[in-house]
Parts: sequence; structure tokens; C-alpha cells
Amino acid sequence: MTVKLIALYRKPDDVNAFLDHYHNVHMPLVAKTPHLMKAVVNSVIGSPMGEPPYFLMTEMYFADALKFDEAMKSPENRAAGKDLMGFAKSLVTLIIVEED
Amino acid sequence: MTVKLIALYRKPDDVNAFLDHYHNVHMPLVAKTPHLMKAVVNSVIGSPMGEPPYFLMTEMYFADALKFDEAMKSPENRAAGKDLMGFAKSLVTLIIVEED
Repeated sequence: MTVKLIALYRKPDDVNAFLDHYHNVHMPLVAKTPHLMKAVVNSVIGSPMGEPPYFLMTEMYFADALKFDEAMKSPENRAAGKDLMGFAKSLVTLIIVEED
Repeated sequence: MTVKLIALYRKPDDVNAFLDHYHNVHMPLVAKTPHLMKAVVNSVIGSPMGEPPYFLMTEMYFADALKFDEAMKSPENRAAGKDLMGFAKSLVTLIIVEED
């Protein structure tokens, strides 16, 4: 079953600098991850419950748990993870989900 | 562009009672929402950063913002929302996202 790595980002102080790094540095690194089927970038546009706690959500799709585990252990993923911790450590929440 | 309503649930005290209501009462109400293209239910299976803050994530897909707005105003969605507030008000975070 499809396994997805979900990154939820709180709003940074400098949105433009964040998005510049995100699109031009971080996502090109993510795109190199082995077994990554697709990555969907979503802008948070609101919440039915007031101010949304996040401003960006990325979904990274993998075919199954085995492929996901291999991907996480790859040097390419380590590079993307190191970059993430450098520009968004205090902003990002990561969860691993499996589609029912 | 695709608009999605994302529901992130923290872990309830009584997981079995929660999932029973979620699957047998809540999701059948959600399924009646006009313009809902698909609903994907995901179990949170971990986090690369320690204990994950959520245990369930639901993604509800709509074709665009107009269809989403019509859906939100529907009596079917109001019924699903009322049910949600009844069994998961203190557990759920809702965000509306648009795919880039």
C-alpha cells in the first residue's frame, strides 16, 4: 500500500526567502530521492476552524513500505534531510502515513 | 486546481471507540458531500522526528475552489461537520490546501 511522507510547514518569518530556498534548493534535492513516485506541493489556503497552523504541505509518494524504507536510507534522502534541518528545522512537522 | 480538505487527528484516548465512530458514522456522512471526488484515509505509522503528533489523516479531494466552496455550504457537509465536532473537536486540525 502507498506510503507517503508528509511535511507540514508552519509559516516562516520571511516567506519569500523560505519559498526561494524551498523551490530552488530543497525540492530539487527531494526529487533525487530513489523510489519517489511523485511529490505534491500544496499551499494552505485556509481552515474551517480559524487561522490554519500550517502554510505549506508536501506529500511524497512511495509504492510501499519497503520502497519507502530504502528511500529513507539513501544518500540522496540524507542530503535532502540535512538541507531540511538547515532551513526549516523549527518550522516543519514530518509524519509517515500509509493509505488505508 | 485541486483543492483538498485535510483532517489531521491526534490520538484519542479510546482508539477503538474513535475508529468505530469514524468508519461507521463519520465517513459515511463525509461520503455524501456534493462534489467530493475522493476521500483518502491514511494511518500515521511514524515520523522521522520521533513521536508523530497525529495518528490519522484524511484527504478529501475537490476539483477546484468553486466546487469546494459549494461543497462546504451544503447540508451534507454541515451534517458531517456537526458529527466531527461531536466526536473529535478536541482532536482534529483541519486545513484547506490547493495543489501547486
